[in-house]
Order: sequence, then structure tokens, then C-alpha cells
Amino acid sequence: MNEVNEIENMFDELWPILRSITGDGVRKTHDILSRIVPLTRYEIPSGTKVLDWTIPPEWVVREAYVINPDGRRILDIAENNLHLLNYSIPFQQTVSREELDQHLYSIPDKANAIPYVISYYNPTWGFCISHKERMQLPDGDYTVIIDTDHIQGSLTLSEFVLPGETQQEVFFHTYTCHPSLAHNELSGPLAAIFLARRLSQLPNRRLTYRFVFTPETIGAIAYLAMRGEELRQNMIAGYVITCVGDNGPLTYKYSRDGNTLADRVAEYVFDQLENGRVSYRPFDPYGSDQRQYCSQGYRLPVGSIMRTPYGEYPEYHTSLDNKNIMDFEAMAKTIDVYSKVVNTLELNRTYKNTKPYGEPQLGKIKEIYYNTDTMHASDITLAAKWEIHFCDGEHDLLDIANMSRLDIDLLYKVAERLASAGLFEHCD
Amino acid sequence: MNEVNEIENMFDELWPILRSITGDGVRKTHDILSRIVPLTRYEIPSGTKVLDWTIPPEWVVREAYVINPDGRRILDIAENNLHLLNYSIPFQQTVSREELDQHLYSIPDKANAIPYVISYYNPTWGFCISHKERMQLPDGDYTVIIDTDHIQGSLTLSEFVLPGETQQEVFFHTYTCHPSLAHNELSGPLAAIFLARRLSQLPNRRLTYRFVFTPETIGAIAYLAMRGEELRQNMIAGYVITCVGDNGPLTYKYSRDGNTLADRVAEYVFDQLENGRVSYRPFDPYGSDQRQYCSQGYRLPVGSIMRTPYGEYPEYHTSLDNKNIMDFEAMAKTIDVYSKVVNTLELNRTYKNTKPYGEPQLGKIKEIYYNTDTMHASDITLAAKWEIHFCDGEHDLLDIANMSRLDIDLLYKVAERLASAGLFEHCD
Amino acid sequence: MNEVNEIENMFDELWPILRSITGDGVRKTHDILSRIVPLTRYEIPSGTKVLDWTIPPEWVVREAYVINPDGRRILDIAENNLHLLNYSIPFQQTVSREELDQHLYSIPDKANAIPYVISYYNPTWGFCISHKERMQLPDGDYTVIIDTDHIQGSLTLSEFVLPGETQQEVFFHTYTCHPSLAHNELSGPLAAIFLARRLSQLPNRRLTYRFVFTPETIGAIAYLAMRGEELRQNMIAGYVITCVGDNGPLTYKYSRDGNTLADRVAEYVFDQLENGRVSYRPFDPYGSDQRQYCSQGYRLPVGSIMRTPYGEYPEYHTSLDNKNIMDFEAMAKTIDVYSKVVNTLELNRTYKNTKPYGEPQLGKIKEIYYNTDTMHASDITLAAKWEIHFCDGEHDLLDIANMSRLDIDLLYKVAERLASAGLFEHCD
Repeated sequence: MNEVNEIENMFDELWPILRSITGDGVRKTHDILSRIVPLTRYEIPSGTKVLDWTIPPEWVVREAYVINPDGRRILDIAENNLHLLNYSIPFQQTVSREELDQHLYSIPDKANAIPYVISYYNPTWGFCISHKERMQLPDGDYTVIIDTDHIQGSLTLSEFVLPGETQQEVFFHTYTCHPSLAHNELSGPLAAIFLARRLSQLPNRRLTYRFVFTPETIGAIAYLAMRGEELRQNMIAGYVITCVGDNGPLTYKYSRDGNTLADRVAEYVFDQLENGRVSYRPFDPYGSDQRQYCSQGYRLPVGSIMRTPYGEYPEYHTSLDNKNIMDFEAMAKTIDVYSKVVNTLELNRTYKNTKPYGEPQLGKIKEIYYNTDTMHASDITLAAKWEIHFCDGEHDLLDIANMSRLDIDLLYKVAERLASAGLFEHCD
Repeated sequence: MNEVNEIENMFDELWPILRSITGDGVRKTHDILSRIVPLTRYEIPSGTKVLDWTIPPEWVVREAYVINPDGRRILDIAENNLHLLNYSIPFQQTVSREELDQHLYSIPDKANAIPYVISYYNPTWGFCISHKERMQLPDGDYTVIIDTDHIQGSLTLSEFVLPGETQQEVFFHTYTCHPSLAHNELSGPLAAIFLARRLSQLPNRRLTYRFVFTPETIGAIAYLAMRGEELRQNMIAGYVITCVGDNGPLTYKYSRDGNTLADRVAEYVFDQLENGRVSYRPFDPYGSDQRQYCSQGYRLPVGSIMRTPYGEYPEYHTSLDNKNIMDFEAMAKTIDVYSKVVNTLELNRTYKNTKPYGEPQLGKIKEIYYNTDTMHASDITLAAKWEIHFCDGEHDLLDIANMSRLDIDLLYKVAERLASAGLFEHCD
Repeated sequence: MNEVNEIENMFDELWPILRSITGDGVRKTHDILSRIVPLTRYEIPSGTKVLDWTIPPEWVVREAYVINPDGRRILDIAENNLHLLNYSIPFQQTVSREELDQHLYSIPDKANAIPYVISYYNPTWGFCISHKERMQLPDGDYTVIIDTDHIQGSLTLSEFVLPGETQQEVFFHTYTCHPSLAHNELSGPLAAIFLARRLSQLPNRRLTYRFVFTPETIGAIAYLAMRGEELRQNMIAGYVITCVGDNGPLTYKYSRDGNTLADRVAEYVFDQLENGRVSYRPFDPYGSDQRQYCSQGYRLPVGSIMRTPYGEYPEYHTSLDNKNIMDFEAMAKTIDVYSKVVNTLELNRTYKNTKPYGEPQLGKIKEIYYNTDTMHASDITLAAKWEIHFCDGEHDLLDIANMSRLDIDLLYKVAERLASAGLFEHCD
């Protein structure tokens, strides 16, 4: 079975699970992901202080639906788990249509969409409904059954670390807290887990790779409380993997500082793409978990490579963000892009030319200098010349790739030859 | 009576006065302006050393005209005070047309305009005349009557200071030394005095405001000799108010350094204008008194918000720069723009987020976080997020307004709430 | 005889000489150039270590040709000295067409061109031939006569220094190692030597000027080994003079750092050209000797003003780069451009205004301030005002020329007046 099919099958398996920021739905999701690479799970007890926040009670959902005046079940989470207001308190009572209506959420101009609504920190009950259905609710008595609980449980997060030759670390974060949503939920953990598998199969890794699966916001906060200092010491580049399910243009959202290694590598990889339909967003403090990692105290180099970004497509945060808008082939290509990011980071060494006075005599170094027959300098010679001039311990190979328009693969190969010949020293 | 009418009436009253860099015309002008807000007047005696300059003798003008060969009075300052070369020495003698002509100033390609010509530091006599009239002067004897004097007097300058909570100071300079000129003279002191009244009526002021009325060049030099050190210590932004009488596009001329608070605020206010017909000029060392305040030794953050700039309109420095080209409604709008500058400066605080690790839990802060019903983050939440990320003691609210495209009014309101909630500290 | 004719005559005299990186052809070339200004010659013995390189044996060429199956001489260097592979080892033997062919160099898509091929450091023999001729060589026996030698000799380089009032130095480099090539060889030393003569005729020179004539690469390396430290101490700007023979657009290739004085002056001079057909190239580490001077250890401010750059025209490095593509009038204009560079460098002083508080009273300085009659500030006044504001010991006159759009000639004249008046101090 090829990777694209594997991804699609796992999507189908994860789709119906009712996820939230805590609870068994999350655990089941992480169990399934662990089949691809073995995740290490952490459970943070409810009530634990994490930075400025507190881990909330765990949400338990048994059933939730409404019996309408005709005695028919409607708004049943068994049918679509978006129907229940996420983190709804329990409620069992017969109410009038008017009273019920005060607890309904719909979007008038997206009449067929059930919205995704949460109320994690403000205790209330409610249902999400398509506006069309809401408009047709007859008068009469409605029996509301919301059998939920908020218990002293825990918040679940998982980690997967691939150690490399150095402690310098590349970081990938994704979130697993939205219920049945596709592009803006399942695409993230799916791309992350299959990327992790690809990296685990590399014959060698210079850098260490870390993948993290948490609920959004509170999960990133909890993770930073646990690992923030370590990340600050070791992370050289990081990415939030989200919104990678459709076939929109590849989009890069910058890290807070806008010129970090994460940003420079993303730009380089985007520039190399044959079909240049790419797009950029400056950093802003909305959306996803970049903003936790990029917060003032940490200011980590975390960007995000996406397809169509959150909030920029009509199905966002509704029941229409489902398999219909997914493109699993495109998703595999996005994973390719992340793989190229990794490859670029692996090759992006910094060197120092130990013979900086004039050009060294390259003719003395086998396989570097051009031979008479071709009458032209080879790419290898060109690369060597750029490196001899700019490998000064300050410029990394990415800088030199940008100024020379030569591939980092070639630059790396040539720089290593020059290092073997004793001409270059490694500086990282 | 509304402000526009008040301005126009005062314009009419100030118009006929013969002003120069010294003299009773200046004093009378300052007396009239003092009716709006009370100016504090300083008289600097002739001969006083001020920086590299010396206060010149005071110019006294009693009458000046010529009797033509037909015995008719021409070039009479009673008719138009531009006729007399400003600072002309006394002269009473009958001369031929040829000799008279050597003392006449006119502009051939503006045949109907009487030019405005000065000779402050080079003692000579002369008359300014329309080129048309000059061409028609018949041969014959002309009796020249210039009854002037250069006496040991003083140079007049006035100040109006509105103290605020802090000594940090916003500075406005205008000049009162041109005789009957409109856009390039009276518009400046008129806009300044009515702006001063508006600011004096504000319920509270964080910043101190200083208005200065002096003759151009020598007055600014004299003022710097008196207050330069104080300005250097306290001024956070300053503006020269000149050429604000017509309805040309709003124009900003930058301070010497081009990126001072004065410049940043002007850009912000211009960006906010609904009708975006604005224009920018880089700093240059010509024209008006910016260049004294921006001189190397002081390098004060002084720009200039104008309408059509000096030198860029055909009536400039001639008798055609008169009430015909004035637009008092537009002038009130320019005062509005200066008021917005003041408002922006008042709100432009700098804060430091005291919980920089991850985003703080905004849900705990009343009236900041979004509620479930709207399903969207409010502008207040957006503002809070930008501030949490970028209020680091380095970025002021203007920086954050520029990066977020949010209004400084909103940013200030939200930052103050975050400060009240103990999350932010003031840094200024 | 005018300069253009002199250049052309010397071109004709230098053209047939067989040059290489060493040998009598180089010496003869330097002898002829010495007629214009007296060059000081240095001979560096074969085997001498120069930086990372070693001076190669000297190449001696007596004769080289092939006798074809019909008994006719072909590929004779007496006919075109490009025929012999430059630095070819000796070889005298009768070979088959097949064996000969393995030692031939031609360019299939430039069938009429004899290529210029070198093999300085890889000992082999060979001939360069037009592809058309190569295709017509009949089968049969070919007698190869290459009577060359590689002896313990020396590498020749020459210098011409024009001392100025200061040790600050402007540097010009050109190379004399290509055989009969025109635009990409002879144009360089010819332009250099005639520029040197022009500068030697200047009535006075503030700066010191240094001209260097070496073989490419190894010559620049050898020169740096001899003078590198001195250049690093004294050079304020330098240029490689090459490719200045055709009438292509003036082209500037930047120094490594891209913002050195050499770059700024070239930009200024190009901006001043009436016919603005100019072109720019960023620094790259290919081509000519800039890269030796700009190498990390020296990082000298060396750019290059050319016409059509090396590698960018079809005749490059072939027998078609000959007198047909030369334009001696254009070459004289290129020397004019270099002369303007020199003039700009001479005038580019740095001053400090000693009265930085407010504008000094210029009216006190004779010939600076505007007079009443013109009613306008003269260019002299404008220049003075820019200088009063920006001569702060940091900005040089070139900076002020760029911001004011005033000529450096005017700025220099006015600054010197201000210095004479005691208002400015020299800072360089």
C-alpha cells in the first residue's frame, strides 16, 4: 500500500472520533497515530498550573441529542459530532423552542453548514446546527439530552524524538483537539506522523527531530511549561503543521522575527519548487500555536508551511471542512516539501576557509577544478569559488545558495570536498 | 461664531499690518493673537549675540512712496506694504527714472505680481513693483520718500506653554515676519493659535505642549539660544506650522533624520485620513525653520505638516499670495490633522508584558476575551494579542498600530485594560 | 597625434605578440607600454611560493605548426598565435589524424572561430582550430612540430605609482597574459597606460595612484604576496580595467561588499553620464582578478568598470575577439569615465561643521550668500546649506551629492570656501 492510500485510510479511521482539548477521543487518536511511529505520551492532570494557565477538567461525553416535538432525535452527536457545543456542560430538560434557540449556534450565510463552536472556559450548554435546519424547527417542546461530565482527569500530549548526531533540533508541532474536521485538523497530525516515519527511515541524521501532538493553545502552553527551556537551547528551526489537506497553493507564514533559519529555509525550498504557485503571510498573533512558541519569553524560530491557511476558505470551522475538500496526493506533496526543508537543514553547514588570502590553487584539489577539454568551469568549480569567497564562518550554505543561485546539495558536496582537502573547517 | 469664521475675521485684521523680523507690526500681530490664548512675550535687544548671529537693529517704518513725474503717489506702502523693500534704509531724494529703476524689483514672467523682497543684512533702499507697472513708468523725475529708521530696539518672540503630566514636550513653531502674505505667512500663526486653544480645552494632557511665534530664521535662532537645551531634553516631536492656508493636498516634510517620532506620527495620521490625497517631501535644508531645529547641534525631531509647500505655487512670495487663495474650511481641517497628531502622541504609550512566556490566559481578564456567541475574536481580542506579543518595552503603540493595522485608539484602550489587570507595565 | 590614434597604433603593435602568463611576449608587451609611462618591472622566479600558489616554469615558444598529409603547414602560430594550446609541452612526432584529433580544440557552434585554450598547470600538448577546418582535415599522417620549453625563468609584473599628497591610494589593475585577443585583453592594458599618462599630467594630486600590470590570477596572487599588506593599509578604492575595447554599454561590477567607496564613486559617475545606457552586475567570484583582491583575507574595495563584460559576447575567448570589434573612440570615452572617477575621488573630502548649533550666519561669508537682486538662493547657497547640515565628520561629499543631487565639483568648491572661512574642519 502506498503512502497516499495509507494516509487516506488513517484519515477515515480518525474522522468519526469526537476530539476536544482533553478526553478519550484524543487518546484514541494518539493510539492510532502511534501505529506509524511510536509516540511517547504524557498526561498532565487537571488543575496543574502551566505558565499562566491551568489544565481544565477532562471532558467526558456519553451522548447528546434533542428530541423534537414529533418525538424524533435531532442534533445527535452520533450523526455529526460537531452538533454538540465543544466542552458543553450536562443538561437534561424539556424546553420550549424559544429557550432551545438561545442555545443554538448557526451561520445565516452558510445555511447548510454546522459550525464548530467551543466553550472551554465559560461553562454553558449548546448545540450547533445548520441555519437551514434551525429555521425549520417547529414550535413545541424539545427534550434536551446532554450527558457529559467534567472530571478530574488529564490533558494528553505526545512526543516523538529522532535523535541525531547533534543536539541541534528541528521541531514540528501539530494539534489534535478538533472533532470531525478535515483540512483544519486531521491533515496536520496525519502529515506530521507520516513525515516522522520518513525521517525515521533516513540512513543518518545530523540533526535531532522532535514532533509534538497536543491540543491547540492549552496543549502548546503545557508543552512549553514542560520543555520550553530545552527548546530554547536546542531548536534551530520549527514549524506548525496545520491546514495541509487541500490542494491550495503552498503558503508560508513567517515566525515572529521573520528572518530566522525556519523562515530562510522555507523561502529557499519554496524558491526551488518547479511550479512556483506559492504564497507568503507575515507573522500575526492569531491562529494556531506558532504564537505560543513565538511569544516574547521564548521567541522560538517557528513558522508554518500550509496549503490554504485557516480562516481563508469558506468551509473553515464548519461541517463542510470534510473529506470533500481533501486531496491526499497534494498532502503527500506537502510532506515532500517538509522533507526538502529537512534535507536543506541537514546540508546547511557553516564553514571557514582556512586560506583566505587570494584564491587557493584549486587545481591541486582533485575533482574540484575544471579540465581543459570542456573549456568551461564546471558547476563544481563555480560552487567552490563562491564558497572560497563567502565561507567565512558567518555565512551558512543557505546564504551562499541565495547569492549564487546554486543548489545547496551541490554546495554541500563541494564544501565537504574542500573540508576533506583541509581547506575548510566546520564552524557548527 | 464658529472657528472657521473666527479664523477668517482674524485673518482680515492681521492682513494689512506691515510685519518684518522686528518692529511694531510684529508686536501688534502678537497682541491680536493673544486674544485667543495668552502669549508670553520676550524682547531680545538689538545687538544681542544669539548663537552665530546678532539681533539686528529694529526697523521703524513711517511712510514710503514715490511721487511720479505727473505728481501722483505710486508704490505707496499705504496701498500695499509689499511695495517697500523689507528693511529698506531711509531715502528721500528726487531721482531720474533710470536711477529709480536700479532700485526696483519685479518679476518679468509674473507681470501683475508685486514681489516680496527683503534685505535684512545688506543695507540698501528699494521698491517692489509689478512688472507691468514698471514697464509703463514714464521718463522724468521721481521723488522718493522712504521714511524709515534702524534703531536700537528689540526682536519680539512669543511662547505659549500648556503643561501636561510629564515634561515630555510636543513643539509647534510658526513665524510672524512676512508683511501682507496669506498662505505663506498668516495661515501659520492663525492655525497655531487656534490649535493652541483647542489643546488648552482638552480635559487632561499627558504631554506638555509648546507653541512659539518668532520671525523666521533669526527668530528661531534666538529662540534656540534661549531654550535649545531645554528643547533637546524634553521634545519628543515638533512641527513647523506654515503654508496651511490653501486647499492643496496635505504634505509632510520629514525631519532631518526621517524616522523620528514626529515623522512616524505624521505618517500614521496621514494613513488614517479617509481621503488619501497626501504627499511627502524628504528633508532638505531649504525653507522655513525646520532647518534650525534640525541643525546638527540640536537635531530635534521637527517636521512640517503643510498644504501646498513654499516655493511650489506660482503666487509664492508675491502680492498674489492673498486671501483669494485661502480656504478657511480647509484650514480648519488642517487643524484637525494637527489635533489627530496630538491625540496620537497622547495615546502612544510604551508597555511591557510581564507574562512573556506563552500567551497569558486572556479569558481571565474581563472584557478582553471573545465570547462564544459571536464565534469570532473581537477587535479587542485582536488588539490584546498584538500587544501581548509586541509590548516588550521596545515597541510603542505606534509600531503596533503599523504592524497590526489596528487603530491606536483601540490599542491604547486595550493596553490600559491589560495594565489595570496587572499584565502590562508602563515603560515611559 | 591624438590619443585615439596613439591607442590604435599601440594596439596594432601589441596585437601579434604571443603572450602567456610568463615569457618574453609579456616582457615585450611591458616594454612597449613603458613608452607611455615608465613601468617598474619585477621578475618573480619560477618556483617562488606566492600565497597558496607556486610561480610556474617560464614558457618558451620557438615554433609550432603541423604538416598535413599534403605536406602543407597548418595551425601555424606564425599565422595566428591562438593555434597553440597555451603552455603546451613540446612535441615532435608524426601522428595519425585520429591521434591528432584528440589534441585539437574547437567550438562546433562557432565554426569559424579558433578558441583560446590554456593548460597552465596540467602538462599536455594541443592545437586550437576552427571547427570548420577541423571537419575538413583529411585522413593521413600529420607531423606535429611544437618546439616549446618550460624553463626555470620568472613571472613578469609591472607597477606604476603616482605619489600624491597623502598615502591614501587608488588602485588600477589590468592583465597582460592573453595572446592575440582584443576586447578581452589588449583593451585593458591600453586603457590603463593611457589613463596613467593622463593622471601623471594632472597639476596636483591629493591621492596616490597605483597601476599594476600582471598575468591574470597567478599574477594578481603574486602581486598580493608582494604588496597585499600595503594595499590593505592604503587602498581607498580600486578597479580592474578589462573589457574596455568595444562600444557596449558601460557596465559596473561591484566589489565583494557592494557598498565600498569604489562602488559609490562608480554609481555616482554613472549617474552623471549624459547618455544613461549603463548596466550593473553584482559581485560574483568568477572572471578576472577582482576576486583575488576581494578575497576574504584582503577584502579590498575593488570593482570593475567595463564595456561588454567577459563571457557576455559571442566572440569571447576566440579568434573573433579581434580588431573588428574594437572601437577606439569608445575606449577614449571609457578612459574619460575612469578620469571622472579619479576626479570624484580627489574631491570627495569629509568635513565637520564647527558651528553646529543652528545655521551659521552665511551672510557674513563672502561669496556664499545670495544677493537681493536675484531674489533666489544660488546653487552656492544651496550647497552651503546641505553641507552645513550634513558635514558632520561622518558623511563625505559623495553622500551629500547623493542626497542633494548637487555636483560634487560644486560641493567641493563651496566646502573649501567654508573651510577657508574657518567654519569647516577637514576630517580626512
